[in-house]
Amino acid sequence: MDNTSCKIQLNRLMATINESAEIGKIPGNGLGRLALTDDDKHMRDVLKKWMVEAGLEVRVDDFGVMYGRRKGKADKKPVLMGSHLDTQPNGGRFDGVLGVLAALEVVRTLNDFNIETERPIEIVNFTNEEGARFEPSMLASGALAGDYERDEVYQIKDHHGKRFGDELERIGYKGQAENRIQDPSAYIELHIEQGPILENEGVSVGAVEGIQGEYALEVVIRGESGHAGTTPMNMRKDALAAAVEMIGDVESLAKTQGTVATVGRLSLSPDVVNVIPGEVTFSVDIRHFNDQMMEELIQEVKHNIQVIAKRRGVTAAVRDLWPTPTVHFDPEIVRLIETISEEQGYTVKRMLSGAGHDAKYMNRLAPTAMIFVPSVEGKSHVESEFTKDEDIEKGANVLLHLIHWLANR
Amino acid sequence: MDNTSCKIQLNRLMATINESAEIGKIPGNGLGRLALTDDDKHMRDVLKKWMVEAGLEVRVDDFGVMYGRRKGKADKKPVLMGSHLDTQPNGGRFDGVLGVLAALEVVRTLNDFNIETERPIEIVNFTNEEGARFEPSMLASGALAGDYERDEVYQIKDHHGKRFGDELERIGYKGQAENRIQDPSAYIELHIEQGPILENEGVSVGAVEGIQGEYALEVVIRGESGHAGTTPMNMRKDALAAAVEMIGDVESLAKTQGTVATVGRLSLSPDVVNVIPGEVTFSVDIRHFNDQMMEELIQEVKHNIQVIAKRRGVTAAVRDLWPTPTVHFDPEIVRLIETISEEQGYTVKRMLSGAGHDAKYMNRLAPTAMIFVPSVEGKSHVESEFTKDEDIEKGANVLLHLIHWLANR
Repeated sequence: MDNTSCKIQLNRLMATINESAEIGKIPGNGLGRLALTDDDKHMRDVLKKWMVEAGLEVRVDDFGVMYGRRKGKADKKPVLMGSHLDTQPNGGRFDGVLGVLAALEVVRTLNDFNIETERPIEIVNFTNEEGARFEPSMLASGALAGDYERDEVYQIKDHHGKRFGDELERIGYKGQAENRIQDPSAYIELHIEQGPILENEGVSVGAVEGIQGEYALEVVIRGESGHAGTTPMNMRKDALAAAVEMIGDVESLAKTQGTVATVGRLSLSPDVVNVIPGEVTFSVDIRHFNDQMMEELIQEVKHNIQVIAKRRGVTAAVRDLWPTPTVHFDPEIVRLIETISEEQGYTVKRMLSGAGHDAKYMNRLAPTAMIFVPSVEGKSHVESEFTKDEDIEKGANVLLHLIHWLANR
Repeated sequence: MDNTSCKIQLNRLMATINESAEIGKIPGNGLGRLALTDDDKHMRDVLKKWMVEAGLEVRVDDFGVMYGRRKGKADKKPVLMGSHLDTQPNGGRFDGVLGVLAALEVVRTLNDFNIETERPIEIVNFTNEEGARFEPSMLASGALAGDYERDEVYQIKDHHGKRFGDELERIGYKGQAENRIQDPSAYIELHIEQGPILENEGVSVGAVEGIQGEYALEVVIRGESGHAGTTPMNMRKDALAAAVEMIGDVESLAKTQGTVATVGRLSLSPDVVNVIPGEVTFSVDIRHFNDQMMEELIQEVKHNIQVIAKRRGVTAAVRDLWPTPTVHFDPEIVRLIETISEEQGYTVKRMLSGAGHDAKYMNRLAPTAMIFVPSVEGKSHVESEFTKDEDIEKGANVLLHLIHWLANR
C-alpha cells in the first residue's frame, strides 16, 4: 500500500457521520442516543447494513457488541478497531461514532484499492460505553475483559427500572457468547480528544499512551429534615448544607492538586422549598495521571467528608463506584502512530487520555493504543462538541495505515 | 360557661388525631398526606362524617375548603376556627391536623354542655396549606383572600403534571363559590409551634402576635456541560460548583443576620456522574421578623449570586416565588389568649410564628390570632414531630374558651 496515494474518502466518511447524526438527534446539532433505546437499535441496524454492503461478516455477542469481520489471507489473530455508537443524553455527534465509522471507512478504502491483508480485520461497536443509561460506563468491554459477570450485567437497571438484559433482547441485539472477541492481535480506537490540549498546541494527531485513572464515589449524607421557618440555624442538621461544603472542598482540592474532580449527580430528599433537606446523595468523579497521588487525593477527600459531617452533626456513607488505576497502552503501537503521522506529514503528540474508553479494557486482551483528533474548545458530552473535517481526515488516514501495518505483521 | 369545669375531653380529641394519623401513614409515625390525593379525600370524608355527627351543617367551596357550621342564637357574623388536614411528604401527625380536630373537639364540648352562642361558629379545613404538592403554600386561603384567581389556581400543576382543578374534581371536593367564607367576625387557629421556643422556655401556650416574613426565590444557573475527565478546572463553567458557592453564601448570611434561610430544592442537568452539570435550579427560602431587614437581606443574597455567577462565567436568573411581609394579628385577641391561659392556670408567652399559616391570609378577612402549643425539640415537617398530650389539652381548652368568648361578643 502506497503511503501517499492510499487515503480514505473524507466525503464518504462525513456522509456516514451525518447519517448517524440524524438518529437520536437533539437540538443544537447534538445526539441523545442512549444505549439500547430505539434510536440505538436504529443506528445498529444501519451499521449492520453498511458492514454487510462492505462485504463484512457480521456477528453480535451476548452483550450486544457488534463485529464486522473482513477475511485475511491467513487464519491469524484479527486486528480490531472500533469504538461505540451510544451517546450521553446531551452528547455530540463524534464521541464514539467517529471510531466506529472511521473503521468502516478504513474497510471501504481497503476494498476500493483491492488490498488484502495477512490477518483478518474486525470493526467493533461496543455496547453502553457512556454509562449514561446503565452504570458503570464501558460496561460491555469491561464484561469482555472479565470485570463483570453476564448475569450481573443483565440485571443492571436504568433510572426507569428497565434491565440491561431485557432491553438488549427487546431491541433484538442479544447475540451469542461464542461471538465474543477471541484472542485479537491488536485493538486500535480512533476518538476525539474531548479535551483542549491538541487544539491549544496546534497539533493534529494524538498518539495516546494511556488513560488516566478515574475514581468515582457515591456519598450519602443523612441529616435531619425540619421546618425552614422555625428551626434555628444552630439546631439544624441540614444534609444539603453539609453536602455543599463537601462539594466546595472537592473542587478546591482538585485545583490545588492540578487535576480534575467533578460532582455530576446530586439528589435530595425531601425536595421541597420550605423543608430542610434530610438526605442528600451525590457523586464525586476524580481523575489523576499518577496512581499514587490519586490514592492520596481520594483519602483526603474521604477524610474531609467525615470531618465536615461530624462538625455538622450529619452522617456520611461513602461508597466506591468505580476505582480505576491509570492504563498504559502498548509502546510499540504508540510509536507506530507517531511514525505514520509523520510519514503522512501530520503533526503528532504523545499524550494521555483524560476520559475513559473501551480501549482501557481492550488493553487487557491485546496490544492496544488510541489515536486522538482535536476537539474544538475541548468540548465533549455537549451538543456543541465539534471536530474539523481536516482533522477527521487525518485521524482516519492514520488509522488506515496503522491497521494495514498491523494486519500484515 | 364555667371557666374551670368546662373542659375539652382529651381522650376523645386524641382518638380523632390517632384516627387521622392512620390515613396516609408513613414509617416512623409520620404522615404523607399530600393535598388532593386519595388519602386527602379519605381524610376529608372522615371529617365530613364527624362534622355531620356533631350536628354541623357541612359545605365545600370551589377551592375544596370545607366548612362545618354550628348555628348561633342570632344571625350574626360567624366565628371561624380551623387549619388544614394536608401534610408534607414526610410530615408529622399534628401539623395542621391539631387545629382542625381541636376545633371539632370544641364543638363537641359545646354540644356536651348544651352551650348555645350568640354567633354561629364554623370549623374550616383549608386546601393545600403545605404547598408540597401544588405551589405556593396556603393556596386556598390565599385565593380566598384575593391573591390568586380561581382559574390560575385550577391550572397549577404538581410534579407529575396533574392540575389542581382536575384533582379537586377527581376526589369529589370541587364545591361552589357561594360557599366561600363570608365576612367572618374572627378567625382562630390552634397549631403546634414547629420551633423550639416554648419548649426551651418551659411555657405551655403561645399567644401568637403575627407571622414573620417569608421570601422565597428560585435561582436558575446556566453554565456549560462538559466531560468530567478532560475539561481543565480553569476552563469549566460548572453550574453546580457555582450553585454550591451561592448556597454556602446564603447559609453564612442567615447566620450572620441571626435569622434563618434554607435551600430546600435543587435539581441539575444533566444529572450524570461523569458530566459537568450545565444547569442547576435551586430555591432559597428566607425568613425575617423585620420587613426592612428582610428587604436588605434579599438584596444582599441577590447581589452575591450575581457576583459569584460573573466570576465563574455562568448566568443566574433569579425569580421571586413568594415574597411575603410580616403579618400582625389582632392585638385584642392576642390579649384574650393571654388572659384565658392565665385564668386556666397555664403559662403563656407572646411570640411570632416562624412558619406561614392560613391565618396569614385570614388576617386580611377578619380579626385573627393563633394559639401555639410546644413542639418537642422544635421539630416539624418530619415524621418524629411530636406534641405532648398535656400541651394539646391546654391548647384546646384555650381555643374552647376563646371561641366561646368571641361567639358571644
